[in-house]
Amino acid sequence: MSAASRISKRLVSTFTQRPTPPKSHLHSPLPSSSFPKGYILTGTHCGIKKKKPGIPDLALILSTSPHPTSAAACFTRNAFKAAPVLVSQQVLEGSGGRDVRALVVNSGCANAVTGKKGMEDAWGMVRAVDQLLEPPPSEGKNATLVMSTGVIGQNLPIDKIIKGIQSLSPKSPTTQEPKLASNFESWELAAKAFMTTDTFPKLRSRTFTIKGKEYRMAGMDKGAGMIHPNMGPPSGTGQLHATLLACILTDAAISPRSLQSALTYAVDRSFNSISVDGDMSTNDTIVVLANGAAAAAASQSQEEIDEETDKESYEIFKSELTAFAIDLAKLVVRDGEGATKFVTVSVHGAPTYEDAHKVASRISTSALVKTALYGEDANWGRILASTGSIPLSTPLLPHKVSVSFIPSDSTSPLPVLLNGEPEIVDEVRAKEILEKEEFEVRVELGMGDESAVYWTCDLSYEYVSINGDYRS
Amino acid sequence: MSAASRISKRLVSTFTQRPTPPKSHLHSPLPSSSFPKGYILTGTHCGIKKKKPGIPDLALILSTSPHPTSAAACFTRNAFKAAPVLVSQQVLEGSGGRDVRALVVNSGCANAVTGKKGMEDAWGMVRAVDQLLEPPPSEGKNATLVMSTGVIGQNLPIDKIIKGIQSLSPKSPTTQEPKLASNFESWELAAKAFMTTDTFPKLRSRTFTIKGKEYRMAGMDKGAGMIHPNMGPPSGTGQLHATLLACILTDAAISPRSLQSALTYAVDRSFNSISVDGDMSTNDTIVVLANGAAAAAASQSQEEIDEETDKESYEIFKSELTAFAIDLAKLVVRDGEGATKFVTVSVHGAPTYEDAHKVASRISTSALVKTALYGEDANWGRILASTGSIPLSTPLLPHKVSVSFIPSDSTSPLPVLLNGEPEIVDEVRAKEILEKEEFEVRVELGMGDESAVYWTCDLSYEYVSINGDYRS
Repeated sequence: MSAASRISKRLVSTFTQRPTPPKSHLHSPLPSSSFPKGYILTGTHCGIKKKKPGIPDLALILSTSPHPTSAAACFTRNAFKAAPVLVSQQVLEGSGGRDVRALVVNSGCANAVTGKKGMEDAWGMVRAVDQLLEPPPSEGKNATLVMSTGVIGQNLPIDKIIKGIQSLSPKSPTTQEPKLASNFESWELAAKAFMTTDTFPKLRSRTFTIKGKEYRMAGMDKGAGMIHPNMGPPSGTGQLHATLLACILTDAAISPRSLQSALTYAVDRSFNSISVDGDMSTNDTIVVLANGAAAAAASQSQEEIDEETDKESYEIFKSELTAFAIDLAKLVVRDGEGATKFVTVSVHGAPTYEDAHKVASRISTSALVKTALYGEDANWGRILASTGSIPLSTPLLPHKVSVSFIPSDSTSPLPVLLNGEPEIVDEVRAKEILEKEEFEVRVELGMGDESAVYWTCDLSYEYVSINGDYRS
Repeated sequence: MSAASRISKRLVSTFTQRPTPPKSHLHSPLPSSSFPKGYILTGTHCGIKKKKPGIPDLALILSTSPHPTSAAACFTRNAFKAAPVLVSQQVLEGSGGRDVRALVVNSGCANAVTGKKGMEDAWGMVRAVDQLLEPPPSEGKNATLVMSTGVIGQNLPIDKIIKGIQSLSPKSPTTQEPKLASNFESWELAAKAFMTTDTFPKLRSRTFTIKGKEYRMAGMDKGAGMIHPNMGPPSGTGQLHATLLACILTDAAISPRSLQSALTYAVDRSFNSISVDGDMSTNDTIVVLANGAAAAAASQSQEEIDEETDKESYEIFKSELTAFAIDLAKLVVRDGEGATKFVTVSVHGAPTYEDAHKVASRISTSALVKTALYGEDANWGRILASTGSIPLSTPLLPHKVSVSFIPSDSTSPLPVLLNGEPEIVDEVRAKEILEKEEFEVRVELGMGDESAVYWTCDLSYEYVSINGDYRS
């Protein structure tokens, strides 16, 4: 279009808002047999979400496995780490990932930028859960990790939370439902307690086999806004984004060290490869527990998977964990604030994986690309401008770059740029692909063999309205 | 607010759109005496903006000074440099910035990602202008720089452009107005020819004095979208953003080398410190010409300002150029696509200028911060999350960071975070400050003495609508 008509469009926009499609179909019952053995959990309303008494705001997850439970986690790399992040890091480091058996999660308040009081409150949640554990944690150790999400800069209503935790104790006299259990309803309640601006609980499970033995994995997460995670192992530093909380529970047995390395690998290719708004949170945390309960009985000893001693089993576990983490991560993008599109951005032919990941990230966070996706506009010029806007380990060669749109229905792709030269674009076909809720943007750099994938959504009116008055 | 009510808000948003305020008051006549001597220019409609015959889409600027004209420029660092960028770089390098006397600019088509044809067209524009020059450029040299802005991936209607250029020749037989001149109307027509989604022509002038001698400086620019420039000298590389075109003309005399170093300094603190949408363009270019015409007559020789031989004069010129570049850069942000706020983000107490600049840039590009600004919401948590989201040369110390909002009417600032601890925020006062069109976000890192400033705008519904259907 000419600049002139763009000016007139700017003054009198004819653009009509497309509402966010409902996402409820993304949540449905799962067979209890698909949940890992040896976990009891639930979600309850303890009073953090004052205005909605029915809505769960506290989740408690305990391993009841007779076998030792391994734990691993990745945390936000934001310099302003929330109290629960700092406390969970200390619990994990203090225990070496051994005998960490419980996880407590609250939504509605992030307990971030809350100073000393915030740290006391987070430790209070950990200790309150530790006291419920049978057998208790060994002397001077903690066995509980904590996660919080919600508004920044407000203190937790800690008394309500402690009461809430105690009311869930297996020993608790109160007859009040819900109780810790292992059925679908209890998993669903826990998942609901993770939610903030999420529109549906994010819960998935899967079974997998290692050397003929069957294991289970289930997990839940939440996201919606401030979503562009960059999480690392407890000691990690670097750049980061997004409030994302996730936990994955499995009944496999694996050493803490190997569990951490598998998780770090999986997170980089899943949660660290999604973006809703390119903003990174103070609370991002993903926790994995492996309780070895797949072994039929306490008597039946189960050998731990370890990267050093059994590489083959480790690689299978790592790929299962990565695939599952990707499933959970995609749910967050599908439920991104105001999202009307689910777009896969794949970058190929990069000299290094880091280069491919950087380009995919830049495209996935470009406001111009994301508004064009909302407008269902095959604006490859913006994709190209984003691609060229970050320095790579080797300078980009414009004449080698190709861009295409790939439909989700496996019909033929639409090339829009070939070796740096624009293709004559069939706009009808482009519309066909882009008006779908899901498609892929593929960028070929022609510089090497490395590739990376990012999952992102569009930038809509509703994103602006959700975030224009978040606190008010 | 509780997560629960946020969910309800998400489903039924009560958020109302605030329209972009009119910006026309930012353009008004300037006294001819304030324009630099020895330049003739104009803008005309040559037919690129098909749908709006009245709208200028071609600008021509010539120096008529009897003194040698120096030129310097900064160009986008995008890997996908548009043809006019590559051609102007070659012209500048071929001439060493000596005797470059003309600038031709078109809007409506960016001549970007247009392959060989694009390069031929850009060279064609340069040669067509060179042929108008008296005296002609010395053998084998070019004396004209070229800039283009508009849609990416389309070829220029080069015949129309060449005809347009020729019709402006002082020798041209055509009686058709407009002609090259040096009055306000001709400066205004040239500025209008820069515009794409801009809502007003961006033209400014100033006079300044060096060692008792008066000089003049005038310039024009355009922006609106894809605005987050990162431009460097011809040889520069690095990260970049935005379609920003600017030219600054002065009748001072300064050596090409010193003009380039002054411009590079000025651009980093002006055009490289603004953001509308964090996206970087393939065409960003800023050109400066210094024609020495302040000297009354050709006979009257004028000594060139040079960094080596006359540091004092150079420093005055550099600071004048920087202040003027900041004026022009701010206009781009005030006219940002959909912008309803003009926000200064100042970062203080950083260990290095680069650290301060990085933090200011990150805050200025955060979708969550920018939507909060649109919502007039004192959401310091998002400012903090952005501040902590990038690695600095020295790790950030959360307990030393303070954030405050500073009103534009010089009433008292509103601290929201003091040494890492949230203040009790007077929301009424916060609203007072944030509902104004202009205010400052001040971040103190408490780690050093360096500071940097960024100018940004909010992210509104209108930004989404403008960019949701840019091409259609």
